[in-house]
Amino acid sequence: MAVLSDPLPHPQGWWRHLALIDHHSHAWSATPLSLGELASRLTEAVEGPWGFDTLLGMSFRRWCAPVLDLAPRCPPADYAERRAELGPEEVGRRFVRAAGLDALLVDTGVSAPGLLDLSEVSRISATPVHQILRLESLAEEVMTDDADPAQLADRFADRLAAALADRLAGDPPVVACKSIAAYRHGLDLDPARPSPSEVREAAAAWLARPVPGGPGPARLVHPVILRHLLWSGIDAGLPLQIHTGMGDVDEDLHRCDPSLLTPFLRASAAEGTPVMLLHCYPYHRHAAYLASVFPHVYLDVGLAGTFVGHRLPVVLAETLELAPFTKLLYASDAFGLAELHYLSAVRFREALVQALEPLRSTEGFDHGEIGRLAGLIGSGNAQRVYSLAARSPEPDQSRQGR
Amino acid sequence: MAVLSDPLPHPQGWWRHLALIDHHSHAWSATPLSLGELASRLTEAVEGPWGFDTLLGMSFRRWCAPVLDLAPRCPPADYAERRAELGPEEVGRRFVRAAGLDALLVDTGVSAPGLLDLSEVSRISATPVHQILRLESLAEEVMTDDADPAQLADRFADRLAAALADRLAGDPPVVACKSIAAYRHGLDLDPARPSPSEVREAAAAWLARPVPGGPGPARLVHPVILRHLLWSGIDAGLPLQIHTGMGDVDEDLHRCDPSLLTPFLRASAAEGTPVMLLHCYPYHRHAAYLASVFPHVYLDVGLAGTFVGHRLPVVLAETLELAPFTKLLYASDAFGLAELHYLSAVRFREALVQALEPLRSTEGFDHGEIGRLAGLIGSGNAQRVYSLAARSPEPDQSRQGR
Amino acid sequence: MAVLSDPLPHPQGWWRHLALIDHHSHAWSATPLSLGELASRLTEAVEGPWGFDTLLGMSFRRWCAPVLDLAPRCPPADYAERRAELGPEEVGRRFVRAAGLDALLVDTGVSAPGLLDLSEVSRISATPVHQILRLESLAEEVMTDDADPAQLADRFADRLAAALADRLAGDPPVVACKSIAAYRHGLDLDPARPSPSEVREAAAAWLARPVPGGPGPARLVHPVILRHLLWSGIDAGLPLQIHTGMGDVDEDLHRCDPSLLTPFLRASAAEGTPVMLLHCYPYHRHAAYLASVFPHVYLDVGLAGTFVGHRLPVVLAETLELAPFTKLLYASDAFGLAELHYLSAVRFREALVQALEPLRSTEGFDHGEIGRLAGLIGSGNAQRVYSLAARSPEPDQSRQGR
Repeated sequence: MAVLSDPLPHPQGWWRHLALIDHHSHAWSATPLSLGELASRLTEAVEGPWGFDTLLGMSFRRWCAPVLDLAPRCPPADYAERRAELGPEEVGRRFVRAAGLDALLVDTGVSAPGLLDLSEVSRISATPVHQILRLESLAEEVMTDDADPAQLADRFADRLAAALADRLAGDPPVVACKSIAAYRHGLDLDPARPSPSEVREAAAAWLARPVPGGPGPARLVHPVILRHLLWSGIDAGLPLQIHTGMGDVDEDLHRCDPSLLTPFLRASAAEGTPVMLLHCYPYHRHAAYLASVFPHVYLDVGLAGTFVGHRLPVVLAETLELAPFTKLLYASDAFGLAELHYLSAVRFREALVQALEPLRSTEGFDHGEIGRLAGLIGSGNAQRVYSLAARSPEPDQSRQGR
Repeated sequence: MAVLSDPLPHPQGWWRHLALIDHHSHAWSATPLSLGELASRLTEAVEGPWGFDTLLGMSFRRWCAPVLDLAPRCPPADYAERRAELGPEEVGRRFVRAAGLDALLVDTGVSAPGLLDLSEVSRISATPVHQILRLESLAEEVMTDDADPAQLADRFADRLAAALADRLAGDPPVVACKSIAAYRHGLDLDPARPSPSEVREAAAAWLARPVPGGPGPARLVHPVILRHLLWSGIDAGLPLQIHTGMGDVDEDLHRCDPSLLTPFLRASAAEGTPVMLLHCYPYHRHAAYLASVFPHVYLDVGLAGTFVGHRLPVVLAETLELAPFTKLLYASDAFGLAELHYLSAVRFREALVQALEPLRSTEGFDHGEIGRLAGLIGSGNAQRVYSLAARSPEPDQSRQGR
Repeated sequence: MAVLSDPLPHPQGWWRHLALIDHHSHAWSATPLSLGELASRLTEAVEGPWGFDTLLGMSFRRWCAPVLDLAPRCPPADYAERRAELGPEEVGRRFVRAAGLDALLVDTGVSAPGLLDLSEVSRISATPVHQILRLESLAEEVMTDDADPAQLADRFADRLAAALADRLAGDPPVVACKSIAAYRHGLDLDPARPSPSEVREAAAAWLARPVPGGPGPARLVHPVILRHLLWSGIDAGLPLQIHTGMGDVDEDLHRCDPSLLTPFLRASAAEGTPVMLLHCYPYHRHAAYLASVFPHVYLDVGLAGTFVGHRLPVVLAETLELAPFTKLLYASDAFGLAELHYLSAVRFREALVQALEPLRSTEGFDHGEIGRLAGLIGSGNAQRVYSLAARSPEPDQSRQGR
């Protein structure tokens, strides 16, 4: 696994063992899935019967079937049948181990039926697992945790700060905060740190919203609270992950352009907290530009990495036009399906090497240099930014990709 | 023509006979054209003397000359001379038949000197022709159709609804509505369905605008009327085509980004009316994302398909990164020049196969699978969405490309 | 050098001598640079220690080392040492002469320690040098040039007009005006020509701003003055260069999308003054669209041309999807480092030919036609738009690339 120090005896295929740290992902579901549910999980739509008729679907058929002992490209119905036969736990074990990850950072802020908890993810994957704290979920927890709404508004900022401090000191350790302000408002937020009285007023307004379907506060969409969370993340000092670019129907794509964050990035630069732009696609060139001018800004192509199938080398090449090699990270954003952890990893390794190949063929750099850059992007940058310990260099057969 | 069921005896060239339905185009002009006029028609500029010094111009020189019995790449002046010699009718017949279309959907809402009417298009092309109703043109007709302006404002919505119903039941049949709100305002419209009183007030405001050059109401640019038309299109239930992306100097490109429509798409999703995003370029990846999350959203690369010449495989590959194969359609947006119907079709067939080729070479799918996907994009999706009858499978020599 | 008339005896390498006019660049610095300073100059960040870990850095290592008699791809530390040994003047002479330019247009509106003046640039480069006048710098000069602030506001427009007229008639000749409104406000400006009273009020407001750090007016950011400058540039009649797209941390990228200028381009079209969109990336397809519909609009890929290293053929190919061959120009935007003049030129020549190559391989045009188009983009368009005299056709060994 240790690309940086090992000799590269098999240059044609060395990338198959490229160390990867998945710096942004989710748990998978242990619920059995019908063929139709499987297809929908290959989309970000509420219902997506076209799931297999996409580049992701074709990529899935090609790469995932052999892990379940099926022929590549077998019909989706055969795949769904075999999947049911093996059962969710065995399916999860096979795929997440085959991904061969050095570490897995998991956003625990979203719930869904059958989603595994962190200890199960850790046990089944046999991979070091770290927690990402979703700030909006934390704020919503704080808001449901008090009997006296009037007082709650006044005390919201203090209670949020306390809850955040608790979680940062908790077990398993939190290694990053995450904002989904893109989904809840858009990234066209006032960049300034809100004053205490602004936060108080916003919390009161949030509490006063009519709540569809009963007790508990409404879904957090108040822009002042959302930017208070961004600044709380900056103050927490851990890398702050921000959803940008493609997502699902809840977001307005054009309001998720990461360059809308420029004023916030300018305002937060002096704090030194790393800001991790997630996904970015189709604004990955914009995000790469931001990473090229702001020392504290990093990026990945996240969700797009799996969705675009065989086109990933192009998307990475576009990203690397401006993104420094020290700023790009690997993330699967896998959610719900264990297959996506594997598919994302196996394609990323190959695509990254294809994207870097012209540095060899047209610029004349050697395999050692290409390996160094691939090592940074695959795991080195994540290790450094998240202060993760390096894994032991012994080859571990069970984690090697198929 | 029947890609879905036929064996594919000549894999290298089978795409030359790929069935195509052009789901968005215009009539061509029967007026003789000078060399300068010909060059300008290769641009969307008011005057574009550089028309031949573009990828479209080079593509035109390469592909169109042989259809007029000239050597490929002959000088534009020779081409213009031969064109004049043959005359507009023969030129139109040759090119539109060589396009080899299974069906042609024509937007009849724009007038220009010498533009053919639908019956002439049908006769000369020997192709089934269907009508697209441009909603802004219909609204402008309704507005000029009454003697009493004060009453007209009050009755505008009813009269529009009646005119729309008339046209939907007319002959030739209307198979789609179309909005050019992008040109008249931009896609940054309030997504909500306007109330009857809002429509009344807007109609009165429209009528009250000073009219340059005389009788008849001013050009429709009122945002409330424009979104009333969008909702009228949704209510009509036929596929609603919406201009997005590149166009001409009347539009502000950044206000034609299809992702600006996200709130409208969210609001209209439950109605089930298909929404067809036209052109999209350079926002084709944005539009593909929308088609990947909204079940009722489809797209084409329209105008860009012809303009970008040999770059079309790249543009299609970018589009297919997220667009489901069941959501992309073929459109020429050919306007004014019969050549553009042919050029668009001949390049689209080849480019589509090139864009799909990596599914064979890197994912290992066979020609049958590639043919199935090409069949959906070339004609299957259009047939399904517009409820068009399939053409008879007999080969028709006169419609095969040269 | 005369691509248009010369035979092309060595088609494989003819582009090495393609005539280039750099229509937008800056002077380089004669200050010795440490390794860290050198790395930072390869970024647009305030401090960019990652400068060599980018495509630009890799391209720099590959191409620049041999000009200083070092092995390609030698370690950056060796390079910095050799650079110090030769001294700034010799380094400048080698690189800028190796760029082999027919002319160099230099923006003199920015100052930095050690930056050469125009006469030194001319002497060291042995290349015809022309001046670009930065309008914001001129306005700031005018504002610091009077003892009576109250009167100055009233007289600002007149004094600016006089200063502009002086400079246009000066020596060396000014051949273009330039606006950096993108940095100072964003391109989302009201497109209308401001009235005299609006300009007076804006000048007064500018003068009244608190001035951090002492005497002299604050940095010009007032939108009314910025658009008054744009219109002054239009009125001056010389090509008006406008910064768009990528830049540094002072700008908000999404407010530098050149398509935000559409209303201004529509308003200024009738004046006939050429408008030159600089850089444009990552909005180069948007800018190409503008150049394809507005007769007075031209573009380059400027800064991106050097930054994206071996990816430049892709960026140029994307730009040429819509940009007429008569509208694209060459610019290095080289600033501070003499190396960037060379690196930009050597890569542009090769990348341009690669971007045009499919016109030969897929469309069948011959080397003469490709050479004609490359000649327009490399120098012909600049010659025509800036009314520059053609250079003598004699080969000049000293200016040929290595």
